[in-house]
Amino acid sequence: MRRDVFTADHEDFRETVRTFVAKEVVPHYEEWERAGRMPREVFAKLGALGVLGIAIPEEYGGAGMADYRYNVVLQEEASRALVTLGTVRTQLDVILPYFLAYADAGQRDRWFPGLAAGTLLTAIAMTEPGTGSDLAGVRTTAVRDGDHYVLNGAKTFITGGLLADLVIVVARTSADPGDRRAGLTLLVVEDGMPGFSRGRVLNKIGLKVQDTVELSFDDVRVPVANRLGEEGQAFRYLGHNLPQERMTVAVGSVAQARAAVATTTEYVKERKAFGTSVASFQNTKFELAGMAAEVEAAQAMLDRAVLALVDGELSGADAAKVKLFCTETQGRVVDRCLQLFGGYGYMAEYPIARLYTDARVARIYAGTSEVMKVIIAKSLGL
Amino acid sequence: MRRDVFTADHEDFRETVRTFVAKEVVPHYEEWERAGRMPREVFAKLGALGVLGIAIPEEYGGAGMADYRYNVVLQEEASRALVTLGTVRTQLDVILPYFLAYADAGQRDRWFPGLAAGTLLTAIAMTEPGTGSDLAGVRTTAVRDGDHYVLNGAKTFITGGLLADLVIVVARTSADPGDRRAGLTLLVVEDGMPGFSRGRVLNKIGLKVQDTVELSFDDVRVPVANRLGEEGQAFRYLGHNLPQERMTVAVGSVAQARAAVATTTEYVKERKAFGTSVASFQNTKFELAGMAAEVEAAQAMLDRAVLALVDGELSGADAAKVKLFCTETQGRVVDRCLQLFGGYGYMAEYPIARLYTDARVARIYAGTSEVMKVIIAKSLGL
Amino acid sequence: MRRDVFTADHEDFRETVRTFVAKEVVPHYEEWERAGRMPREVFAKLGALGVLGIAIPEEYGGAGMADYRYNVVLQEEASRALVTLGTVRTQLDVILPYFLAYADAGQRDRWFPGLAAGTLLTAIAMTEPGTGSDLAGVRTTAVRDGDHYVLNGAKTFITGGLLADLVIVVARTSADPGDRRAGLTLLVVEDGMPGFSRGRVLNKIGLKVQDTVELSFDDVRVPVANRLGEEGQAFRYLGHNLPQERMTVAVGSVAQARAAVATTTEYVKERKAFGTSVASFQNTKFELAGMAAEVEAAQAMLDRAVLALVDGELSGADAAKVKLFCTETQGRVVDRCLQLFGGYGYMAEYPIARLYTDARVARIYAGTSEVMKVIIAKSLGL
Amino acid sequence: MRRDVFTADHEDFRETVRTFVAKEVVPHYEEWERAGRMPREVFAKLGALGVLGIAIPEEYGGAGMADYRYNVVLQEEASRALVTLGTVRTQLDVILPYFLAYADAGQRDRWFPGLAAGTLLTAIAMTEPGTGSDLAGVRTTAVRDGDHYVLNGAKTFITGGLLADLVIVVARTSADPGDRRAGLTLLVVEDGMPGFSRGRVLNKIGLKVQDTVELSFDDVRVPVANRLGEEGQAFRYLGHNLPQERMTVAVGSVAQARAAVATTTEYVKERKAFGTSVASFQNTKFELAGMAAEVEAAQAMLDRAVLALVDGELSGADAAKVKLFCTETQGRVVDRCLQLFGGYGYMAEYPIARLYTDARVARIYAGTSEVMKVIIAKSLGL
Repeated sequence: MRRDVFTADHEDFRETVRTFVAKEVVPHYEEWERAGRMPREVFAKLGALGVLGIAIPEEYGGAGMADYRYNVVLQEEASRALVTLGTVRTQLDVILPYFLAYADAGQRDRWFPGLAAGTLLTAIAMTEPGTGSDLAGVRTTAVRDGDHYVLNGAKTFITGGLLADLVIVVARTSADPGDRRAGLTLLVVEDGMPGFSRGRVLNKIGLKVQDTVELSFDDVRVPVANRLGEEGQAFRYLGHNLPQERMTVAVGSVAQARAAVATTTEYVKERKAFGTSVASFQNTKFELAGMAAEVEAAQAMLDRAVLALVDGELSGADAAKVKLFCTETQGRVVDRCLQLFGGYGYMAEYPIARLYTDARVARIYAGTSEVMKVIIAKSLGL
Repeated sequence: MRRDVFTADHEDFRETVRTFVAKEVVPHYEEWERAGRMPREVFAKLGALGVLGIAIPEEYGGAGMADYRYNVVLQEEASRALVTLGTVRTQLDVILPYFLAYADAGQRDRWFPGLAAGTLLTAIAMTEPGTGSDLAGVRTTAVRDGDHYVLNGAKTFITGGLLADLVIVVARTSADPGDRRAGLTLLVVEDGMPGFSRGRVLNKIGLKVQDTVELSFDDVRVPVANRLGEEGQAFRYLGHNLPQERMTVAVGSVAQARAAVATTTEYVKERKAFGTSVASFQNTKFELAGMAAEVEAAQAMLDRAVLALVDGELSGADAAKVKLFCTETQGRVVDRCLQLFGGYGYMAEYPIARLYTDARVARIYAGTSEVMKVIIAKSLGL
Repeated sequence: MRRDVFTADHEDFRETVRTFVAKEVVPHYEEWERAGRMPREVFAKLGALGVLGIAIPEEYGGAGMADYRYNVVLQEEASRALVTLGTVRTQLDVILPYFLAYADAGQRDRWFPGLAAGTLLTAIAMTEPGTGSDLAGVRTTAVRDGDHYVLNGAKTFITGGLLADLVIVVARTSADPGDRRAGLTLLVVEDGMPGFSRGRVLNKIGLKVQDTVELSFDDVRVPVANRLGEEGQAFRYLGHNLPQERMTVAVGSVAQARAAVATTTEYVKERKAFGTSVASFQNTKFELAGMAAEVEAAQAMLDRAVLALVDGELSGADAAKVKLFCTETQGRVVDRCLQLFGGYGYMAEYPIARLYTDARVARIYAGTSEVMKVIIAKSLGL
Repeated sequence: MRRDVFTADHEDFRETVRTFVAKEVVPHYEEWERAGRMPREVFAKLGALGVLGIAIPEEYGGAGMADYRYNVVLQEEASRALVTLGTVRTQLDVILPYFLAYADAGQRDRWFPGLAAGTLLTAIAMTEPGTGSDLAGVRTTAVRDGDHYVLNGAKTFITGGLLADLVIVVARTSADPGDRRAGLTLLVVEDGMPGFSRGRVLNKIGLKVQDTVELSFDDVRVPVANRLGEEGQAFRYLGHNLPQERMTVAVGSVAQARAAVATTTEYVKERKAFGTSVASFQNTKFELAGMAAEVEAAQAMLDRAVLALVDGELSGADAAKVKLFCTETQGRVVDRCLQLFGGYGYMAEYPIARLYTDARVARIYAGTSEVMKVIIAKSLGL
């Protein structure tokens, strides 16, 4: 069905991205997968192309167009080519909003030009060993000492942590035993600060082009000038950005589910089995037809939510519904698509295998399906 | 999420319908269920209110506003009150379009005023014993004899057949053995025509307020002036209206699934089990949260399709996707809702039981889920 | 796969039952459905045939063979013929065990001959309006007054309550606020006792041949001689019989799911659609193949549990697993079978419609699927 | 529930295997995963322990006890420890049966001692690029030339191909255009034969300890003395062993699903989230309870089939039902278990991730779920 989300500007941008992905991503993707990360140069190229600075004010080298639909186009075009943009997505959709919203003038001067140019790579460090999605359990501490905070703790599951020049760390600056959500603060740790070290690179089921690492902070002296926003407000800041983070996962899920249906449809037409094409079996037709309908539903729901997000009207409960539905749909769809590839689907060299292994995390990160249900249930008065 | 479908006019109409349903439908619904049909008077009252004539030209007593969204409002408001409007839906959504599109001037004069006023009740007779959804298998014949067709055959599964004053019959007027789809014609049989008789009223799992009957035609002489449209064009006419018919089922499915979630949410808050409210169980919360997300997806998909239908842009494949997804969603949702009622859900007096038994036909009529998949698969080139 | 459950004696019994069902049940079943119950004569005939007394000691006219496998054969043969034995199942599988286990010598003399002969019909009254599966919430009271208990309260969802000559009532004989499970006692109320009255017959989605009624007790004087077992022990008694009650539901579920697959397989072979048999579609083949596998799994699990039950080794948790899995399987299977019937599946006259509407309660009564999960989870140490 | 499959001998064997797995497999498993295969020494150790020769006649160093239940124990014990025995399973369950059934006296003398001792490793080469499960499409040819066959062709998806000393190759020895199933012959290609080379090692989603390779045959001269069984009978031979091959997959699926439930149950008890243990959430309890019931059903079905297989009574259709149901159950179970691990479940170092990635192939190899349905449907007369 006709989508009602994009303008001509977005479609122009789509062309740019499509070309970039075809020339600069697809040919190198398997190599990046083996390396376990994308090279820094990709960021620089995207920066040069203007992609990384779309939402950054013009005075810092950006385009000053805060419009989440450009981010949507990025993921859609990568998925269409059966790849991802790895940590670019995290940088633009998850991390940049914190800089845009909370950086003060000095921080803007120091960091925005590099963010726009793709020379400053970022990560955000929330999760700690043992705490999962539960921010209230953060144990990393930052103790004020003059112009600095002294930061101690360990973080895990940090996407892009390996190459990050700037890491936003969620730390506890005061301990109110009565309110575990209070007293959290965002500090920007820079590459090279003494006491900041990167630990193991975690081996994941999928998402092979984006590194996931452990970080540790041992008496790291972080200047107060590196505090993002006000002290003690991190819980609120993080909550505020959650709907967009969840949308970002949902955008990827729908785009990848679409891509899975498309590549599978193509495959079954070519592939022979038992003397005929796999496409000729009614089971194949019905499976793909059913999936096409599910993906269409997810797309319609997602598009409605994208427009609401752009209008600043998307509630946390609605974002939760969208994430829950779109990621669950993706999970079902890629599993069924893989099945239609038979043995080839299990081989990592086939993109469907990558779509399958990448997909599994979508129901988990940025809040599990269970957490989404908790949020939705509350909105129903349950 | 905010819907983008209705204008202020539709919302005014919604108020009217809501009041009507509360006063004229809800108090009598159980009685109608026992009787197996709605009384004729309901049509007359809806006619007087202007509901039946919305799409009929003003010169015949209607409002001249062909806008499918009014039909959507009707189903939504009935569902909201946990009832249906029975054969009113069939008359407005399924049958009236044939009259509007194909009636000639004389037929308009004869029938439109009654259709608008609710004094002429209608049915459409397509299915025959043994042919199912397969129009090409129609064996009822209409042989031209001067100014008349002589009609012979039997029809079954005729919704509203018991009270219908006008029955549009699909008959074979010529037999081209090479093209089973050609040679079908629409004839309007009137109550009282010699040879036209009504057979058994079929006992269904649900849909208790709308009668479903067998009809038989034994040398019924139908004037040529009762032919709707051109001879031999019925297959095309029927195909043309199918997207709207399927949308109509989907509209009901989504509205009823929504209503099921709403009434269940209310129920679990009140209902106690094991010393606490059923709503307090995490399983209850998660079930309803998951359903709320599914219903939201179905609603977004449906709304997009409604706008496409209103704009004359809804393809057959997209209508098939919508019907497939929305009716399958309804099926899962009402089943899970009923479960949350425990033993009470199995009692016919609880509206959830009605929602459950009514729902089962949605995946079947106006084309089964399997037929929808055939249509979708074709559109994928499979 | 070959089953390892039955001996030659059970197979002989199977023949007897098969003949009885074909001659005495099938021809009258639709009439009983319309009446909302089976006539008393069915019990008398089954009594004469020796079916009702199998487990009753020989001195009272029974066969003295307490072997649950005969009960299994009964349900299997009824299901095979696409009917049920209505309240016969409740009497033999659910209620008789209480009489066998707890009746004293006097009670045996008074009631066992009639139970074996089919002249005494029974019911058990546990559930009360608002309490659901939660026995601890029973509010019906029985206050000792000399040689009598004075019984007051209301019960609902009583299967077979309309014709029951003997009703085992769960009543509270003492109220320990600290232990809601203590103080429950079984009293046998007899037809005709002053103050005992039958209320509404509840209209259910399915199970049309077995009546479900409300009962009320208004100062009913029940002789102490009608107490079944010891005072205050009802909670334990009821718990003890629960595994068999749950097995009974599972036995019916598997037998009916099997029957659904068989009747659907037969139907699709005969039924034509789009110029070919429905059986020729790959979707039809795959649906039935998948269901056949699921039913085979359920049967294997059930058979293992039946043997454990016969050996007195079936734990409550294992019975819960069996009920959960078998009833959920039945639910999925009958729904998918009905779909293969198309519009005919929605017509009450087709046995598949009855299998569908009967099935819905299996996931609810004798403990909902949710209650089963609670029990299983406990056994996992959760 | 109590299983009725094993004798004291099997349980003794179980102890032996359990110890071996704990000492010789578990400590090295991650290393083997990184290497992409198990070392040859594992075979030698298992040979020394008597495990590999159980079914081999005593005169060749075996135990002469052809009893599939020992194979079951092997998989169960490996799964219990959250590992697999990699290609040992293929050798014993899939390949050895061909040697046992079709090797002539000379072949027995040459190969059986090495097979029993674990010094001869094996593979079977059926699939070719593009043919999938369709044996009738084999294009590898073997042309008789005096005492040799000249073998040409390419094979893919060959489990254990990297280290195999003996490869059973399915080749076409005569081409009857009217019967694509005739003319297939089994030839044993030995390591080192000129023209036999190993191609790429395929990178799979899971099953990391067992290599899967491409093999090619370029004018390989295979002595007629290396032909296994008669010329032209391979299709029949392969068909004959299929039920056991499928059972082998099912055995692994059930054992691994059980292990998944067990390790997840343990994990949720320890793991904290939102200030409490994950086990305390009702959703956790209900998920695990539902899975426990499904696994119990699969186990009961599988055990019944194992006994039938041991008795030589397992039909192809019943094996297909078992494979279909058990692998589908495994797929659902490991997916739901992984979800309960949250982000940790996505990390390859957690055994649940391995169970998840290993599981995906079970619905595909040894005949896809779709092929199973074709077989079952035929047995239903569809």
